[in-house]
Amino acid sequence: MRGIVTFYLTYLLCLMLGITCVALVAHWNYSYRGGFAWDGSVKQFNWHPVFMVTGMVVLYGNAAVLYRIPLTWGHNKLPWKLLHAGLLLLSFVLSVIGLCAVFDYHNANHTANLYSLHSWVGICTTALFTAQWVMGFTAFLLPCTPMTARALVKPAHVWMGGIILVLGIVSCISGINEKLFFALKGNTNGTLPYSALPPEAITANALGVIIVAFGLVVLKILSNQIWQRPEPGYEEGVYQPLGYDGS
Amino acid sequence: MRGIVTFYLTYLLCLMLGITCVALVAHWNYSYRGGFAWDGSVKQFNWHPVFMVTGMVVLYGNAAVLYRIPLTWGHNKLPWKLLHAGLLLLSFVLSVIGLCAVFDYHNANHTANLYSLHSWVGICTTALFTAQWVMGFTAFLLPCTPMTARALVKPAHVWMGGIILVLGIVSCISGINEKLFFALKGNTNGTLPYSALPPEAITANALGVIIVAFGLVVLKILSNQIWQRPEPGYEEGVYQPLGYDGS
Repeated sequence: MRGIVTFYLTYLLCLMLGITCVALVAHWNYSYRGGFAWDGSVKQFNWHPVFMVTGMVVLYGNAAVLYRIPLTWGHNKLPWKLLHAGLLLLSFVLSVIGLCAVFDYHNANHTANLYSLHSWVGICTTALFTAQWVMGFTAFLLPCTPMTARALVKPAHVWMGGIILVLGIVSCISGINEKLFFALKGNTNGTLPYSALPPEAITANALGVIIVAFGLVVLKILSNQIWQRPEPGYEEGVYQPLGYDGS
Repeated sequence: MRGIVTFYLTYLLCLMLGITCVALVAHWNYSYRGGFAWDGSVKQFNWHPVFMVTGMVVLYGNAAVLYRIPLTWGHNKLPWKLLHAGLLLLSFVLSVIGLCAVFDYHNANHTANLYSLHSWVGICTTALFTAQWVMGFTAFLLPCTPMTARALVKPAHVWMGGIILVLGIVSCISGINEKLFFALKGNTNGTLPYSALPPEAITANALGVIIVAFGLVVLKILSNQIWQRPEPGYEEGVYQPLGYDGS
């Protein structure tokens, strides 16, 4: 009982941090960066952080902890599997739109693509996410996949799930940091430089810190063994930990 | 037996990636950034990435996986505890020297400290590392701490250990990315811009990718339950996983 109360308090924190991330990234780009458009201008670039933070971090993190919600344990697993896969597909689609926003903006302005370390880590994260979704679909949703194969793939699937979240956070923090150095040069357009910590810098730095906090709460939920969905075939109360490779 | 061979192959990979990180960060700052000094010039700043990558990531990661080496399992744990604490203290001292290098450089050049998101995440990482070391020393090395308290603190200590490594990597990637945008502006001093991917950009981007790879190998070693040091009081072959909070 105490474990369930602690779970829901932690889950509430996770939801609140996630909503704050989405609100802050939208507020930053709407109020300080000039808002949104899809016209090759910097307003198109502004979709990039919004879609990446919302898709690759917040929606992804929420999809990852879905099976940990005790409310879902009493039911057939299939609808929750479909919701898990569906949320991650939506997270993937949002991430791809976020990537299109920046590639399109670069191409329209004859700027090179994929040269910064941020972009290298980001594109590797997206590639891993794609592979993870396809592997997950093949292993856990195709009815022809034998149970033995599922059991074999599961620890790697769960471990990779956590790692992709970590890489998504690395990408977001390096990207927000880079954008603030680009945007807040000071003097040229009447804005204060980044080093003077104007309100925009505080807002976007706070967004970065809250993204990290959200990621840590998700990783904490994933790593706590007693919050894992009880699977048939194990002794009551002794669930096989999914967060490590016990092979 | 197969598990031990796989461990040593993974550990060898961990060592090789760690040595490559130290060599690359030193090579980048020596060959492309003008080398090292402690005179308030940019040559003093160059110590910052070298000490942070070597201390906060490579030495830290190696100290974290120390107990996983099967060679150490047959012996009394105390010398290994002292080596674990000693390596982490050295890692902490190197990190503090790395921070002194950048604070001193900023102060000598009348530049603000601690305004970027990179610096916010970095300073939080160092604060957590300090708290973790003091807590670890108090709980596991002071003879007066009761065994029950040690058992209580251990899962949190192991979990925080992994999280601090993740935060260290977030700090390094955002810092290398930031430095490359600062240094490779192109034209001003005859260098190509970052977007043209000159050899320096390839070197430092590769350093970033190898830091991430090193971190993933360390996290993989930490998460594998059968690579954990067998502790007395548990059934043979069924070791309490340390990588999750089983409370």
